[in-house]
Amino acid sequence: MERIDDLGVNNLKLIQNSDYFCFGTDAVLLANFATVKPNSSVVDLCTGNGIIPFLLYGKTNAKKITGIEIQKENYSLAKRSVELNNASDRVNFILDDAKNIENYFERESVGTVTCNPPYMEGNWGFISPNDLKAIARHELYINIDDVVCISAYLLKFGGYLSLIHKSDRLCDIICAMRKYNIEPKRIRFVHSHIFDAPKLVLVEGIKGAKKSLKILNPLCIYNDDGTYTDEVKKLYDGEK
Amino acid sequence: MERIDDLGVNNLKLIQNSDYFCFGTDAVLLANFATVKPNSSVVDLCTGNGIIPFLLYGKTNAKKITGIEIQKENYSLAKRSVELNNASDRVNFILDDAKNIENYFERESVGTVTCNPPYMEGNWGFISPNDLKAIARHELYINIDDVVCISAYLLKFGGYLSLIHKSDRLCDIICAMRKYNIEPKRIRFVHSHIFDAPKLVLVEGIKGAKKSLKILNPLCIYNDDGTYTDEVKKLYDGEK
Repeated sequence: MERIDDLGVNNLKLIQNSDYFCFGTDAVLLANFATVKPNSSVVDLCTGNGIIPFLLYGKTNAKKITGIEIQKENYSLAKRSVELNNASDRVNFILDDAKNIENYFERESVGTVTCNPPYMEGNWGFISPNDLKAIARHELYINIDDVVCISAYLLKFGGYLSLIHKSDRLCDIICAMRKYNIEPKRIRFVHSHIFDAPKLVLVEGIKGAKKSLKILNPLCIYNDDGTYTDEVKKLYDGEK
Repeated sequence: MERIDDLGVNNLKLIQNSDYFCFGTDAVLLANFATVKPNSSVVDLCTGNGIIPFLLYGKTNAKKITGIEIQKENYSLAKRSVELNNASDRVNFILDDAKNIENYFERESVGTVTCNPPYMEGNWGFISPNDLKAIARHELYINIDDVVCISAYLLKFGGYLSLIHKSDRLCDIICAMRKYNIEPKRIRFVHSHIFDAPKLVLVEGIKGAKKSLKILNPLCIYNDDGTYTDEVKKLYDGEK
């Protein structure tokens, strides 16, 4: 079922379809965590319905933001959201496997890469390639190593790779970044409740940078009483 | 200046000298975090005055706990604490560089390795080799890669390596563990105050294990009012 959601930033809207994969808190957290320098170009891998490009369009002064998506149904939604938001001056989408990125971008031409990749590792038995939610959730077409390898191709020296993932994949992310000369610089854990184990982690690496990691303060979603924390409320209000 | 401290566990005492490096919360946290199976043998690298072996002696049913220390002044304190506690049945110390571990242990003969290594990375300009505090604080004689390499030599398949370190060295720890086939399995961040960035991190890896990481709930030292949290109070009371 199709619907139009308000992104709460500069009046932007997003066309979603609940039969596919709708955006969640993850995308909002990543769009706020990622470093995007003014006038830089940004690529969002595994962009889905384009939520992250549209949030970055509203929140940053990036020159150009490109989302790449393998599923034509999602791509179609993203394209229509470009029209709906009159965003074609700065936002565009590519329908292809991110592994074909060389057909669209020069090596070391991008300032920031973002990705909210499929969370479930490896081969989880039989999953239909027509199952759109499964593709978004499982590493069927792309895994962490692929994402970081593609990012290393895209990023300029000093460029940023920002990911959000399940916290239990932290070692895979860190080791893949170092393998491809992207040094992890900022890590922030996302806790539903502050004293609970963090389910998600935000990681930002810089291509070719020296070692110097900061583990940031925890990002907490809910107060004790189940309401959103002030920080998360601000994110949804579009403040950075 | 020499002093005798009560460890708060089974009436154990520790001889310390404030001219050297006295134990801190780090050692208590590590001794409580580390997995030590009954009847296993344990090696504590960079043992200093022996605080971790004595805590593990009080808290676990390890068969034998050996601390190795490069500084003869610390070694001497540790040896005297063995006498003071009548602990020579299960606790002993070696005065040597941990890199010479092959002279004392067979390959793959140990169940748990612990280490609270020097925290400061690399060469920090001129530091006198006679500066006992500097040796304990800086990676003059041993670094993370060394610690993990030595641990991989010592550990049986399925054995545990538990470290505490500054949280900004997390990537170095994770990558070193994977390099030496010790899979990081449990990570716990230590926060002075719950909403602040964690300064320390506890990491446990298992030799030869499959990937499956758990980021645990945060360990918080202080309540808002500056008192110790209940969890930390229990650690100091010797409860596990």
